[in-house]
Amino acid sequence: MKDTLSKEALLEARQLISPHIHQTPVLQSRALNKISGAELFFKCENFQKTGSFKARGATHAVLRLSDEEKKRGVATHSSGNHGQALAWAAQKLGIPCHVVMPENAPEVKIAAVRNYGAEVHLCAPNLPAREAGLKAVQDEFGSVFIPPYNHPNIIAGQSTAAAELLDEIPDLDLIITPVGGGGLLAGTALSTHYFAERCQVIAGEPEGANDAFLSFYSGERVKEHQSQTIADGLLTTLGEINFPIIQELVSDIITVSETEIIEALKLIYQRLKIVVEPSSAVAFAAILQQAERYENRRIGIILSGGNVDLAKLPF
Amino acid sequence: MKDTLSKEALLEARQLISPHIHQTPVLQSRALNKISGAELFFKCENFQKTGSFKARGATHAVLRLSDEEKKRGVATHSSGNHGQALAWAAQKLGIPCHVVMPENAPEVKIAAVRNYGAEVHLCAPNLPAREAGLKAVQDEFGSVFIPPYNHPNIIAGQSTAAAELLDEIPDLDLIITPVGGGGLLAGTALSTHYFAERCQVIAGEPEGANDAFLSFYSGERVKEHQSQTIADGLLTTLGEINFPIIQELVSDIITVSETEIIEALKLIYQRLKIVVEPSSAVAFAAILQQAERYENRRIGIILSGGNVDLAKLPF
Repeated sequence: MKDTLSKEALLEARQLISPHIHQTPVLQSRALNKISGAELFFKCENFQKTGSFKARGATHAVLRLSDEEKKRGVATHSSGNHGQALAWAAQKLGIPCHVVMPENAPEVKIAAVRNYGAEVHLCAPNLPAREAGLKAVQDEFGSVFIPPYNHPNIIAGQSTAAAELLDEIPDLDLIITPVGGGGLLAGTALSTHYFAERCQVIAGEPEGANDAFLSFYSGERVKEHQSQTIADGLLTTLGEINFPIIQELVSDIITVSETEIIEALKLIYQRLKIVVEPSSAVAFAAILQQAERYENRRIGIILSGGNVDLAKLPF
Repeated sequence: MKDTLSKEALLEARQLISPHIHQTPVLQSRALNKISGAELFFKCENFQKTGSFKARGATHAVLRLSDEEKKRGVATHSSGNHGQALAWAAQKLGIPCHVVMPENAPEVKIAAVRNYGAEVHLCAPNLPAREAGLKAVQDEFGSVFIPPYNHPNIIAGQSTAAAELLDEIPDLDLIITPVGGGGLLAGTALSTHYFAERCQVIAGEPEGANDAFLSFYSGERVKEHQSQTIADGLLTTLGEINFPIIQELVSDIITVSETEIIEALKLIYQRLKIVVEPSSAVAFAAILQQAERYENRRIGIILSGGNVDLAKLPF
């Protein structure tokens, strides 16, 4: 692995961000163990700062900037958790932040980014407009672009969730995460590779946004694809840097249906009594689908976040 | 106070039940502190065994039975959390349990009680039928009736939630609970009286089920009243044993509208990222309503439980 993703770099990332983020709790449920036939440990990133694991990568990326870069500030385009996380991290460290957001983004998300002190730039709701908006911001303010997942410092930041989990529950057989752009998955795979070699890493992905699954099994990164799923944090395309790490260190990617996602989501609400976003239920849904295969295994499940529009809950 | 509710009895209750129940976490949220203007400490009984604080009282009541009574087993009538809690406690301690439930109770609640190994007896959905059903069970099986709140051992059991909270956050100015039958409120008032004399205890109650408020301010226990509220755990009438304790040791009862309950509930889901039942939001709603009065106070809020029908969430 390159230096920015070495074992030492990951240890340093954890040390760097730990004063700023939450060490999130790990929950268990006897009822869910019974239903799944496995022993499950839920790492609750819904309780993370800004409500998702994205606070880890964003904080790390910002901390790694040079003083000169910090002066210029940061920018990204996002309709979701990364925008909030970057705005929060930038505010925390006292540097300017610009977030390009689609004009049809929910009011509450735009307000959240503004609440964290970032300047919001609205654009048309498509990727070219978002990229043009970002370029305009960079040209005007000289901001450093912090991408949501396709960056070593982001991946190293996201790796800290699994590192904490492995510290707390050292003898896991398996860790599973959802996969969208692959920041959390690649980070988890690296942490597990360095700190718990015996433990496997797999991912869950919605059937309706299965580019990581297709890329993983074809050996070639799928760049263009239609995506439709309730797990709206996972609509993104697997990143270029993320893909080879995942190919090398991940054992399997399991796709799940919308019905399976909703069923898993419901069980998390009913049994763990916590609020998570649909993307968070995808990994648990994969374990439930493959219950026989994972019987009696000790499994860490990373719940990615809890920023959900309550009015759109599917139950 | 009578011996069963002395300081020593409460300490003993805590010791007796602690091997069986969860010491539930206390959560904080910077966002909710900002919104309320106070410093809030949420004691999360939604994470308690069986999903509510009722597991505390039920466990305590069962543990206090004589060997002869344990052989006869226990019974209650309940459409809600107390039935589940008693079934669970009885199973845990290996004694028979009968729960009389209205035939229109949700399937999922009936299934939950059966899952905890209790025998369910369905009856017509009214109080006389429930009482007749209970009497029939007692006549047939010789079961000991464990009431949901009107009993010293239940009150002493419920007192342990506040005792834990005061241990963890010793310098609270105020503790607030919801009030229905008054088990949690009387227990909290006793714990606070014995273990944190400087701390006040108040309660929140739905306007639509305000018998505790009316009783508290008239000095006479209101026994018959119409109740309608989304906070369905609080439809019950204040208990005979509970009332004088509350009169002596509680400072105020604040009533809140249905709109205020729903708004508080939403904030708990959005900001604390936890699933609670509407009854749990009533205490927080009271603090929000009286924000000026409680500005800058350190306030413990007991969230009573998390057994909610997801299909009936008001958002």
